[in-house]
Amino acid sequence: MEREPTRVMVAVNESTIKGKPHPSISSKRAFEWTLEKMVRSNTSDFKILLLHVHVVDEDGFDEVDSIYASPDDFRDMRESNKSKGLHLLEFFVTKCHEIGVSCEAWIKKGDPKDVICQEVSRVRPDLLVLGSRGLGRFQKVFVGTVSGFCVKHAECQVLTIKRNADETPSDPADD
Amino acid sequence: MEREPTRVMVAVNESTIKGKPHPSISSKRAFEWTLEKMVRSNTSDFKILLLHVHVVDEDGFDEVDSIYASPDDFRDMRESNKSKGLHLLEFFVTKCHEIGVSCEAWIKKGDPKDVICQEVSRVRPDLLVLGSRGLGRFQKVFVGTVSGFCVKHAECQVLTIKRNADETPSDPADD
Repeated sequence: MEREPTRVMVAVNESTIKGKPHPSISSKRAFEWTLEKMVRSNTSDFKILLLHVHVVDEDGFDEVDSIYASPDDFRDMRESNKSKGLHLLEFFVTKCHEIGVSCEAWIKKGDPKDVICQEVSRVRPDLLVLGSRGLGRFQKVFVGTVSGFCVKHAECQVLTIKRNADETPSDPADD
Repeated sequence: MEREPTRVMVAVNESTIKGKPHPSISSKRAFEWTLEKMVRSNTSDFKILLLHVHVVDEDGFDEVDSIYASPDDFRDMRESNKSKGLHLLEFFVTKCHEIGVSCEAWIKKGDPKDVICQEVSRVRPDLLVLGSRGLGRFQKVFVGTVSGFCVKHAECQVLTIKRNADETPSDPADD
């Protein structure tokens, strides 16, 4: 008897290091935790849904030093932003493929917390997994604006993956 | 190669209906979700750690109408409280046994949110699963004092299981 796989949505984002498009430590950790501790070797029991929300404002910061001389420059910039997102998804999809767990990945634009909740309502996963940046600087509590919002508002179960203290980069810009 | 099972702590509590010791809807749902969506048929990959925190104040309410005439009455009351907790754990342990997933269950006394975090620090599970009572009465957001606290403070990953709207009893006392 074939049972439907458990559909796990993992929200992934990029590191904030400029010019180095790679997964953020927290989203990589959330993804890896899901595979190691939940999927384990039972790859046919799970399907991973990878959502990347492209934050327009954050990337807009890069564009302060850009010079736009023709409509093409805008198109090039948009293409570059899009390919950054694609690189990110490629990283995660490749990992899923290596392990043998089925997956789907897509990009949306907007405020991550709102878009994640919208996509949860649309796609109806069994579980939403979110990375969290871990310990706040001056408090001994875990922080996470996006995860906190989604725990409250997303219409599905939410798993918050905290980063280990030793995974926190000394320079927050490397996060 | 034998890998360590994923250790999942599920915090369970009783329904607030008086005189009817059975699992609360939210903790039963959290437990069932864990088995159905995460453990699935991979029972040897997981170990379930069942923690019940006995809330002293809440049970104290029952004792308003009690008459204590001898030291034995206090002992009887304590025994009765203890056996209520045992019934609860028996329910969950029996389920685990039927399914074939290994488990451990124990009772602690105190404020659930504090005790759960203390036990997480002591036992070091891979994941803490908590039920949540679902939608707030006047807001379209999910509430959960204990789960909110544990997401922030527990030193492990935290999964909050929300109840379906149709599982909310019309009378909150039946919760």
